[in-house]
Amino acid sequence: MAVQPQHAIGIDLGGGSIKGALVAADGRMEANARCPTDVESGEYGVADRIAGLCESLRAGGGLANDDIAGIGIGVPGVTTSEGDVIIAPNLHWRRVPFKRILEERIRLQVEIDNDASVAAMGEAHLGAGRGCESLFLITLGTGIGGGLVLGGDIHHGASFAAGEIGHMCMDPDGPLCGCGKNGCLEAFTSGPAMVRYVRRRLPDAVSASLPDTESLSPEIICLAAKNGDSLARDAVARVARYLGIAIANIINVISPDVIAIGGGISAAGGVLLDPIDASAREYTLEGMFDHTRILPAELGNDAGVLGASRLVLK
Amino acid sequence: MAVQPQHAIGIDLGGGSIKGALVAADGRMEANARCPTDVESGEYGVADRIAGLCESLRAGGGLANDDIAGIGIGVPGVTTSEGDVIIAPNLHWRRVPFKRILEERIRLQVEIDNDASVAAMGEAHLGAGRGCESLFLITLGTGIGGGLVLGGDIHHGASFAAGEIGHMCMDPDGPLCGCGKNGCLEAFTSGPAMVRYVRRRLPDAVSASLPDTESLSPEIICLAAKNGDSLARDAVARVARYLGIAIANIINVISPDVIAIGGGISAAGGVLLDPIDASAREYTLEGMFDHTRILPAELGNDAGVLGASRLVLK
Repeated sequence: MAVQPQHAIGIDLGGGSIKGALVAADGRMEANARCPTDVESGEYGVADRIAGLCESLRAGGGLANDDIAGIGIGVPGVTTSEGDVIIAPNLHWRRVPFKRILEERIRLQVEIDNDASVAAMGEAHLGAGRGCESLFLITLGTGIGGGLVLGGDIHHGASFAAGEIGHMCMDPDGPLCGCGKNGCLEAFTSGPAMVRYVRRRLPDAVSASLPDTESLSPEIICLAAKNGDSLARDAVARVARYLGIAIANIINVISPDVIAIGGGISAAGGVLLDPIDASAREYTLEGMFDHTRILPAELGNDAGVLGASRLVLK
Repeated sequence: MAVQPQHAIGIDLGGGSIKGALVAADGRMEANARCPTDVESGEYGVADRIAGLCESLRAGGGLANDDIAGIGIGVPGVTTSEGDVIIAPNLHWRRVPFKRILEERIRLQVEIDNDASVAAMGEAHLGAGRGCESLFLITLGTGIGGGLVLGGDIHHGASFAAGEIGHMCMDPDGPLCGCGKNGCLEAFTSGPAMVRYVRRRLPDAVSASLPDTESLSPEIICLAAKNGDSLARDAVARVARYLGIAIANIINVISPDVIAIGGGISAAGGVLLDPIDASAREYTLEGMFDHTRILPAELGNDAGVLGASRLVLK
């Protein structure tokens, strides 16, 4: 009788670096490694480095190929069910059959998916949503990302891009977004949007704690809000208001068990997450809100590699 | 070898009447019947009438109990996976174990679900979404309803009320909704909202074709828009704008194969549906829109009984 492989390799492919981990069936990360992506070397160069990373993780763990269920990879772009990458701006890729390219180098099953969806798989199986049926992950950073897991699997939808809430329209008369439309969630709540909001109001603000310098960041704003700065509090309240509405909309449409909030800015903690929760409650249809738990994401920077391992090992 | 039953009975339970149909496995409606609901008789009286309707449909079709896979029922309220009705305002019901009550009267499997979700099942299996994997039904009427079918089944979500988009927040500074919040989709786009919008502007409008009478209705407004009345066109454009944004939000979150638009007001046809389609395109993330077909619902008043039959016969 064949023994089920008890390990998988998860890869988090970013524009700057490739992170890899050897992950056990129970979600334990047994080893990890990283190397520069070197985007300039193109898809074949990147594939060579991923193959090398996988080989060293496997051999370092003292495992044979048969012990590995496969390799899961999260890619910063739009993918297809065939494992092609349609577009990945940070990698300068367009229509790259990356699964095929990798399978020519590695004698293992390869599964490829969008990085936000992969992170959602990590949180659903090994993080904030352990044991839940459905989870929506929202990532707050330079952009606003999202991924949806239903019944333990990524829900891709017809466009293979379900969960892309960054460009949900919050107000058709709202501020211009980088995508060319007005009032997108991202135009209200991304890190840069938060900084822009504060910078525009600084000249008129009675604000002792916020510097009008290049270094002004969402982290500094959240810290100032925590210390009672009123302009910073306004900025946080605005982000919380619109994220709360977006969360309410997600609950109205799919009513997931868990909405996890991750991404760099979410590290600010309660000063940001508490008002988001309050706003979501305010805008969700009564009777629906209490069925969804809104939780901080738990896996941090490991969501990518851990989630990727769940593409091949559930 | 047991032969699979080839028929089901679908029941559409409304506040005014109970509609029933004998439906074949291929979706053909072989017979139908209706009777008054008589809400005053309470849940046991209603159950008796449904049992009678089922019996006459079965016997009228010359079928034995074994020929019937079961009875599906769409209820205008919130239901549970156990077949309880949590609340159904039009029936004056609260916490009624209706599946149990019915199964005491009928020796057949009984499945109960929310009426909008049931209609979505009808459209997904036998109407606008035949053969699709996922469908979201939006119903335009006195209220705005919604139901979601994923992988051939109703997606209930954690609250068992997924798809309730009528109270999706379109603008937190928008008009007051009946639910007590501001700027809900329903407050912009329901039939009464449309009439209110026109009535408020009639005194100042250069409008020859719209009467400021009790009889002013969404149907009259859509007809006037078709005939070029500028106030009516404004009203339709406003409804289309906000419905388009809601559709865009649904696409961003779940990216369904089909969004079907039904309900009384949708009978207005192209004068309303074309601008809704255009608005949805305007507000959906580029690259996602073309994967979802936006279609008129096909089953009209039969969506309830046909969808209900699919609860037991897929």
